[in-house]
Amino acid sequence: MTESNAKCRLYVATPLSENAPVSLQPAQAHYLRNVLRMQAGDAIAVFNGRDGEWLVEIDRLDKKGGEGHAIRLLRDQRAEPDLWLLFAPIKKARLDFVVEKAVELGVSGLFPVMTANTSVGRVNTDRLRAQAAEAAEQCERLSVPRVAESMSLKEILADWPAGRVLLVLDERGDAAVPIAEAFSRLNDEQGRPVPAAILVGPEGGFASSELDALGKLPIVRRISLGSRILRAETASVSALACWQAINGDWRGSRPKGQNDA
Amino acid sequence: MTESNAKCRLYVATPLSENAPVSLQPAQAHYLRNVLRMQAGDAIAVFNGRDGEWLVEIDRLDKKGGEGHAIRLLRDQRAEPDLWLLFAPIKKARLDFVVEKAVELGVSGLFPVMTANTSVGRVNTDRLRAQAAEAAEQCERLSVPRVAESMSLKEILADWPAGRVLLVLDERGDAAVPIAEAFSRLNDEQGRPVPAAILVGPEGGFASSELDALGKLPIVRRISLGSRILRAETASVSALACWQAINGDWRGSRPKGQNDA
Repeated sequence: MTESNAKCRLYVATPLSENAPVSLQPAQAHYLRNVLRMQAGDAIAVFNGRDGEWLVEIDRLDKKGGEGHAIRLLRDQRAEPDLWLLFAPIKKARLDFVVEKAVELGVSGLFPVMTANTSVGRVNTDRLRAQAAEAAEQCERLSVPRVAESMSLKEILADWPAGRVLLVLDERGDAAVPIAEAFSRLNDEQGRPVPAAILVGPEGGFASSELDALGKLPIVRRISLGSRILRAETASVSALACWQAINGDWRGSRPKGQNDA
Repeated sequence: MTESNAKCRLYVATPLSENAPVSLQPAQAHYLRNVLRMQAGDAIAVFNGRDGEWLVEIDRLDKKGGEGHAIRLLRDQRAEPDLWLLFAPIKKARLDFVVEKAVELGVSGLFPVMTANTSVGRVNTDRLRAQAAEAAEQCERLSVPRVAESMSLKEILADWPAGRVLLVLDERGDAAVPIAEAFSRLNDEQGRPVPAAILVGPEGGFASSELDALGKLPIVRRISLGSRILRAETASVSALACWQAINGDWRGSRPKGQNDA
C-alpha cells in the first residue's frame, strides 16, 4: 500500500484530476481548522470513489467550507469486492456499529430491510451515509458503499438481480449449511467470487412466510453460524469476515519473497 | 439445541445436581424481581460452567439475594473449543464490545496484554469478568471464558504453553499469510483443531522488538486480513469468526436429513 503522508483522508463529491478544484463541506473545513489545526498551504488526501486518492493542497478554510486543488495521484482507484449486506434495522448504537464494521470489511452496498419481526420502524439513511463515508475515510478505502433506502423484504426479493447469490444467516434453521462449507462453493470456475449478498434477520427471526418466500428463490443459500446465539451485529460482522477470507480480497496474492510464516 | 422454556438464564457459582440448593447474587435477585417480575415458584435456567444447564425453581428473592433448588438437567455440559484471545486493551466502549463478541464467538480464555504501544494503562478485569458472564448468559453458552489478569507481552511469551499455536494479526507485515490459507493448515491429522490463541496488537502496532520476540517463537503464525485498515475490535471479531468457521465448532456436523440448501 502506498503511504500518502497526509495526516487526513476525506471523501469528496468533486471530480479529481491534476489541478482540479476541490470543494470541502463546512463540517470538513471545521474539522481541518479546529481539530487538526490546519490552514492554507497544508495538504490532505481525498478520494471520491471514482478517480483514486489524490494529494490536495488547501487554499482556503473558513466557516462556510473550504477550497483546495488536486496536486497528484497517490493511489489508483480500486473497487471493493461485489458484496452487499442486507440487514433488518436494530437499535441505534448496534446499527452504527454494523455500518462502521461493514465498511471496514469492504461491503459495496448496505440495504436496510424491513421484515415482519423488525422492531425498529424508521431508518435515517442520511445518517447511515455519513457514517459510511466517515468509516471509509478511516479505513483507507477508496470507495464509500452505497446505502439504499429501506425496503421490505418482499420488495427487495421481487426485484432480485439475476446471478447474485443471497446468503441467508439462518440461526435456527435445520436446512442451513456450515458457513465455511457453503462459502467454499461460491466462486466461479476461475475461482472468482460471484456477486453476493448477506442477509441478517431481525432479533425475532424471520416469519415463516418470509422463510417460504426465501426458499422459493433458487439463488438463496441458508448459512449456519453454529449453535451459540449470536446477536444480529455479531452475525453480520462474522459472515462478512468469512466471505472476505474465503471468497473476497483477503485471499489476496502475497508479496514476493514472502515466507510461509 | 434443547429449548429450556425458561425465560432467563443465569450463571452461578454453586455446584448443580438434583435438588441442590442454588444461591443467587443480590444483583441477580434484583433483576429477577424488578425487571422480570418473578417470584417464588417461578423457574429459571442456570449453569456454572461444569455441570450443564439446570432448571431451577426459585424459593426466595429479596434485597439480600435469592435461593432456589435445581429440578432437572436441561442440557449436558459442553466445552467450547480451546481458543484464546490475547488483546492489547483499547478504550472502554470498544473493549466492552470485544469481550461481548468474543464470548458469543466461543473463546475459552481472554488475556489482556500490555504492549509497548498500548495507550490504555489499566484494565478492570473484574468488570470484564462480569461482562463475560452476562454475555455467556445471553448467548446460551454453558461456560464463561477465563479472564486473566493483564500481563506484558514479554511475560506471556516467556511462559507460553507448548503446543498452543499463536496467531498474530499483523496488519502491515509483509510476512503475513492470508487468514483462510493459514487457518486451513492448523488442524491435526485427524482434522481436530490444535489449541490456539489469536493476538491482536494495539492501535499503534507492535514495536519492532516485540515483532522480533514473536518471530523467535516457532509456534507463531503471522496472519493477514487484507489491505483495508481494521480497528482492533474488527480484527478480533473477524479472526475469531474465521477460526470458528474453518477450525472450530461452526464446522459442526449437520442434522440428519438436511438438504444441501
